[in-house]
Amino acid sequence: MNNVPFKGIIAYPITPFDDEEKIDIPLFKNLVERLIISGSHGIAPLGSTGVMPYLSDEEKEAITEATIQQVKGRIPTLVGVSNLTTERTIHHAKFAEQAGADAVMIIPMSYWKLTDDEIVAHYDAVAQKISIPIMAYNNPATSGVDMSPSLLKRLLKIPNVTMIKESTGDIQRMHFLRKELGEDVAFYNGSNPLALSAFTAGAKGWCTAAPNLIPELTVELYNAVEEGNLQKAKEIFYQQFDLLKFIVNKGLPRAVKAGLNILGEEGGNLRSPLKPLTDKEIEELRNIITSL
Amino acid sequence: MNNVPFKGIIAYPITPFDDEEKIDIPLFKNLVERLIISGSHGIAPLGSTGVMPYLSDEEKEAITEATIQQVKGRIPTLVGVSNLTTERTIHHAKFAEQAGADAVMIIPMSYWKLTDDEIVAHYDAVAQKISIPIMAYNNPATSGVDMSPSLLKRLLKIPNVTMIKESTGDIQRMHFLRKELGEDVAFYNGSNPLALSAFTAGAKGWCTAAPNLIPELTVELYNAVEEGNLQKAKEIFYQQFDLLKFIVNKGLPRAVKAGLNILGEEGGNLRSPLKPLTDKEIEELRNIITSL
Amino acid sequence: MNNVPFKGIIAYPITPFDDEEKIDIPLFKNLVERLIISGSHGIAPLGSTGVMPYLSDEEKEAITEATIQQVKGRIPTLVGVSNLTTERTIHHAKFAEQAGADAVMIIPMSYWKLTDDEIVAHYDAVAQKISIPIMAYNNPATSGVDMSPSLLKRLLKIPNVTMIKESTGDIQRMHFLRKELGEDVAFYNGSNPLALSAFTAGAKGWCTAAPNLIPELTVELYNAVEEGNLQKAKEIFYQQFDLLKFIVNKGLPRAVKAGLNILGEEGGNLRSPLKPLTDKEIEELRNIITSL
Amino acid sequence: MNNVPFKGIIAYPITPFDDEEKIDIPLFKNLVERLIISGSHGIAPLGSTGVMPYLSDEEKEAITEATIQQVKGRIPTLVGVSNLTTERTIHHAKFAEQAGADAVMIIPMSYWKLTDDEIVAHYDAVAQKISIPIMAYNNPATSGVDMSPSLLKRLLKIPNVTMIKESTGDIQRMHFLRKELGEDVAFYNGSNPLALSAFTAGAKGWCTAAPNLIPELTVELYNAVEEGNLQKAKEIFYQQFDLLKFIVNKGLPRAVKAGLNILGEEGGNLRSPLKPLTDKEIEELRNIITSL
Repeated sequence: MNNVPFKGIIAYPITPFDDEEKIDIPLFKNLVERLIISGSHGIAPLGSTGVMPYLSDEEKEAITEATIQQVKGRIPTLVGVSNLTTERTIHHAKFAEQAGADAVMIIPMSYWKLTDDEIVAHYDAVAQKISIPIMAYNNPATSGVDMSPSLLKRLLKIPNVTMIKESTGDIQRMHFLRKELGEDVAFYNGSNPLALSAFTAGAKGWCTAAPNLIPELTVELYNAVEEGNLQKAKEIFYQQFDLLKFIVNKGLPRAVKAGLNILGEEGGNLRSPLKPLTDKEIEELRNIITSL
Repeated sequence: MNNVPFKGIIAYPITPFDDEEKIDIPLFKNLVERLIISGSHGIAPLGSTGVMPYLSDEEKEAITEATIQQVKGRIPTLVGVSNLTTERTIHHAKFAEQAGADAVMIIPMSYWKLTDDEIVAHYDAVAQKISIPIMAYNNPATSGVDMSPSLLKRLLKIPNVTMIKESTGDIQRMHFLRKELGEDVAFYNGSNPLALSAFTAGAKGWCTAAPNLIPELTVELYNAVEEGNLQKAKEIFYQQFDLLKFIVNKGLPRAVKAGLNILGEEGGNLRSPLKPLTDKEIEELRNIITSL
Repeated sequence: MNNVPFKGIIAYPITPFDDEEKIDIPLFKNLVERLIISGSHGIAPLGSTGVMPYLSDEEKEAITEATIQQVKGRIPTLVGVSNLTTERTIHHAKFAEQAGADAVMIIPMSYWKLTDDEIVAHYDAVAQKISIPIMAYNNPATSGVDMSPSLLKRLLKIPNVTMIKESTGDIQRMHFLRKELGEDVAFYNGSNPLALSAFTAGAKGWCTAAPNLIPELTVELYNAVEEGNLQKAKEIFYQQFDLLKFIVNKGLPRAVKAGLNILGEEGGNLRSPLKPLTDKEIEELRNIITSL
Repeated sequence: MNNVPFKGIIAYPITPFDDEEKIDIPLFKNLVERLIISGSHGIAPLGSTGVMPYLSDEEKEAITEATIQQVKGRIPTLVGVSNLTTERTIHHAKFAEQAGADAVMIIPMSYWKLTDDEIVAHYDAVAQKISIPIMAYNNPATSGVDMSPSLLKRLLKIPNVTMIKESTGDIQRMHFLRKELGEDVAFYNGSNPLALSAFTAGAKGWCTAAPNLIPELTVELYNAVEEGNLQKAKEIFYQQFDLLKFIVNKGLPRAVKAGLNILGEEGGNLRSPLKPLTDKEIEELRNIITSL
């Protein structure tokens, strides 16, 4: 077992839908293939970008299997299995492991705000049922709960919780985590506009939907940081900053779909209530992409 | 069709689970019956209190049917049918109507923050498929989107969107709504600690889990306000204030279950990851209930 | 000594300036007189409305003396003496007492966020130097520190700290204070849009700049509440709600000055950097005042 | 005239007080000298660290003169002249220029929230009265107003507003500013825990109280960034991170005074209501300093 299978650019594919708003598996496979051949170091289906919460159990399973089939082990896979109930989280985590995923990502979704003890018990219950590593994901904006560094420390004592993904958008938090948890803990950045700062702070990887539109720039940023070349990293970062800001502000699935179309790629449809960007927003994105 | 079927105390039952965390329909019916015979003016299954987001489609349908069967038309029913996707929201809204619900409640659940246009289209799509009235529910803390008064105005133009439930916890918002939307629009308060202020501001009803534990006090508050007796209303409100505060702070399903047990009633189990209150919290609740 | 000299409507005069932005004492006295004869139950110079922080020590002293001279004991006076340093707060508190003020109001101004112990020591140091009662004022938006109910409890143990003014704008806080501190503690509402809710919650008075523009409506609201007439109180409140909202949103000194001019009264100039409302804002205010 | 006289480490001295809480000019000069000889690239009296808002006009003038006398042109000086009123801001800005300051720093202090037009008029009025450059300072936590990038753009059109200091603590804001305002605008970081990220983002300097305690580490961080050595910059930053976090959390004047004492230096007294750190806090700081 590889405890920390990820580093570099972990790409998040969107989940495309057909005209009847059903998932479009062949198109999904195409999109995954694009991410692989353009150099991403890992792939993460069923994230926020992949509108996981909008899918039925069967659809999630189909996306999981399609990913593993398409990737064929070329790069590691990180499958999102978060669910409001512990029982469903276990179900999807076991499914992902059996399908061949390298790791699962779990955010403590919480309609009712969970206590620290409830969160630990939740992760622990899932961890006991699978053997692949778990990335614990902190994103209060979507989960409704902000996991403190001391809670993350508790989670890291569970043997297969080996990675942390941080998306508070606050770089101070990342500095704090790195200090508090030590250099050995693998932490990942999930906030696109923080890409440069997070790598500078020591993040092992960047979980991002940006490779759907600008795969080269994301990889080049990582490489510049790996080389310790601050000036080059800064230049590459500012080159893509407007795009990162745009896709975050407009919502990743909507923005990525529009961007793919601008690039001449098929992006499929969105599932209601999500609607395409407005014409004005598409024009704005076109200008950003053209000027890259 | 009765466009605004609710006034007074609209009671929210919890959804109890058995030892294997499956929904316990007989116990649920008992809990509903308690709410009816203790004087609630309406009943609202599948709300936050009823942990609706933690239930499967089949479970939601079973709870809907059990409610209608148990109520037998004695008081009006308001069924929660919110869902992240428009398609599933329509599904549950139609189910509720066919089962005999008097109205449905819809909050714009939003993993990806919805634009105003997306929200209007969402409500409109559902409204076209049913004939019973819709209560639009604003609660940014759980939905992630704060519907502005101008957006609510747009929603109220959809013929069967006839009621607004406000749970921002900000009484100024309620004053503003009442001024902006006019006296004729039926608005409801969903924030327990604001019960007195909201009635004072003109709320037509109070959507609350409190009747599970203190049915008389909630009804008496409403009656005092109806009589225009400010002094009495104030006294009754302060009598129950600590309890309202406690159940909100600890989470309604967990607090109501604990409170039922303290009262000698069966409350069933919670579904993981939700866990019972700690012994210390239960003791605190016991003290509050004892001193009422 | 009267420990709690205030109830009802405590009116806050603006501090008017002449063409050279110097304080205009004769005009100030006129404005104070208007407040007295239109029925206010108390008067509070050197509040936020009176732009106290923009005045020099000498100017504050002149305003204090002008108030006492003009009021001539007809209604009680509450003089603002808050200052960043303890030494200056004591200076102004002693000056106010010697000038004949009935009480002083103190907010813990804090450029550097104060600890609870620092706040208690600050109030205590001032309290020991004067014999008149102190109103402790909580308004995190301007002071930068939110005094918790437990801190307020500590302050109330200082013999001449006898009154609390709450301006968080959160009615739940007021309910909590009333429950926590007991019915005997005199608390006052400083948030205009909460006027109805605060009186309903048990506030003894309303600290407000509104009497500069609508003295009758503010007094009528208080009287309706005193009579326990909820329906009447509600009507009177909604009548003035738009004006309360407007003056709060635009800033009290700027809005009151504009309103006085609309009413045909002299309001003086503002001190830079504060500028008059724009023409569009003045028009909006005119419409609100005309439709009262 | 040098339009942008600062780069690197701009050190903020505290203002020490004697036993009677009067400013201690000889000790202040000693503290300034320590900052100069330990390598700071600029010095900034009368900042937040220097408790400027707690000083009288005369005291501010004495501190300004003492700084210029002690520095003797060895490094550039940046004098804080912010004031609630435009008139007093002009007064202190003119005083600083006449005393020989290289630049002044101005934050739009605002008891009453200022509009964009009021802020522009405020800076413009001051700028017209002096010839030395102005650093516009954005720190919503202390000023109560968050100057948007578009407002900063407007300010930069005023000829001698040539520098921006950003202290929102949000690195995304700094990225945005740099993109929006262009590479030529000199922006400075005022948030200690963001030191590494801000330099990485292109900040020209770091405005900080840390050199009072760890002058070498702050200069080394700047040098590592100048060399483009990311790995070294990261190591030096993490070495001082706990100290930066501590002094920010405890309040700069209180923490710096305690730190000086731990280092065996005289730090003077604080002015009430500010009180020394508790023994436990001092012990915590001692541990951080010892382990550097």
